[in-house]
Amino acid sequence: MRIEAKLREMGLTLPAKPAELGMPLPFSWVRVRGNRAYASGHGALNPDGSLAGPLGKVGAEVTVEQAYESARQTALAMLSSLQQALGDLDRVTAWLAVRGMVNTAPGFTKTPAVINGFSDLILELYGPEAGQHARSAVGMAELPLGIPVEIEAEVEIAPEA
Amino acid sequence: MRIEAKLREMGLTLPAKPAELGMPLPFSWVRVRGNRAYASGHGALNPDGSLAGPLGKVGAEVTVEQAYESARQTALAMLSSLQQALGDLDRVTAWLAVRGMVNTAPGFTKTPAVINGFSDLILELYGPEAGQHARSAVGMAELPLGIPVEIEAEVEIAPEA
Amino acid sequence: MRIEAKLREMGLTLPAKPAELGMPLPFSWVRVRGNRAYASGHGALNPDGSLAGPLGKVGAEVTVEQAYESARQTALAMLSSLQQALGDLDRVTAWLAVRGMVNTAPGFTKTPAVINGFSDLILELYGPEAGQHARSAVGMAELPLGIPVEIEAEVEIAPEA
Repeated sequence: MRIEAKLREMGLTLPAKPAELGMPLPFSWVRVRGNRAYASGHGALNPDGSLAGPLGKVGAEVTVEQAYESARQTALAMLSSLQQALGDLDRVTAWLAVRGMVNTAPGFTKTPAVINGFSDLILELYGPEAGQHARSAVGMAELPLGIPVEIEAEVEIAPEA
Repeated sequence: MRIEAKLREMGLTLPAKPAELGMPLPFSWVRVRGNRAYASGHGALNPDGSLAGPLGKVGAEVTVEQAYESARQTALAMLSSLQQALGDLDRVTAWLAVRGMVNTAPGFTKTPAVINGFSDLILELYGPEAGQHARSAVGMAELPLGIPVEIEAEVEIAPEA
Repeated sequence: MRIEAKLREMGLTLPAKPAELGMPLPFSWVRVRGNRAYASGHGALNPDGSLAGPLGKVGAEVTVEQAYESARQTALAMLSSLQQALGDLDRVTAWLAVRGMVNTAPGFTKTPAVINGFSDLILELYGPEAGQHARSAVGMAELPLGIPVEIEAEVEIAPEA
């Protein structure tokens, strides 16, 4: 529970499970198998699990600073899902690959600066060894329900203690 | 051959290998290695392996219902490739990660409702344990040859019997 | 060093590490863990590690031939990162999955023809067994700094000799 303690120290709380989105969601937020956990595409959530605003396209309705914050909140949402799936965030022994997707307005090409909100928090929590990850940060035509940022990840996990 | 039997019971047939698309395709529809199979981005196919229509952007030329059906047919195309690569669809012991990509018209944000066509069929065939998967469902600017849906996946496989 | 020798025979040189892009890049170009290496989204580089032109959208500012070349140079950039991470490109024992992303102008749907620039080179260098890979080749709304092609990959690696 080292990571959970660090979150508390930083004054951060994990949001509740994502709320219903008005359509069936027949998939797992985290798929655990062997020494891997695969995190579905997550977006930023309010503490109650509802979608966090602002919605819309980065470079138009959403500023790069707001989108950075959205990516940071997306990390918290994914950590919440991992916590529920694994019981203890310390079981994540290595972040492997992170796919960052930004809902871009035409001409917005600073997508890496947005996804840094996710990477910076993961590295702060897990440190430069376990936290390091391969990454992409690209511009999408649309994201579900107009969220500005969606991120999926693959991590290595330790067996249950 | 339990999955193959189930497909027959449901009256579903797997399409032939994807036809030539007018350009070289120097990759494997399924890459098998160790206990993993990686399925390339697939689209919906007709029984003869030609691209299934309708083509175009979801939310404009293609309705959400048609796109759901396209995602379902994409699952059949991927199962066909897995069948050819593995010999027996029962060798897929766990679906892990599914990346659903929708060719979106501006403003179409119900991408998860589209990719449900894929997830629903996989869960019906494989059940809630082996069939469960992490997923993303996002909107692309363009897809090859104007197909409305493209899906790639990573699955766990058992050694050859 | 068989692959390195082959690159020399073909008259190809690997570019330097990617230069700063005017924003922090808090991720690893290659994440190595166990028998896997995950390559971040790469773009084409000049020999000095700066971004190689032309920038822009394929089908508008960038022709399909230029984009094919960009995808080929992206392979060299990724090989350079793998070389630095692994010490020897022969340690890549199997290419597994390649995700090709093309910065598309509206209506450009020949994305597979672009990503072939990457696949063709990898297959030439590694041969049809180790080089074969699952792949997608899709159209993005935007890519970082307007690069025309971005590609990420997962490969199997051998332990250090």
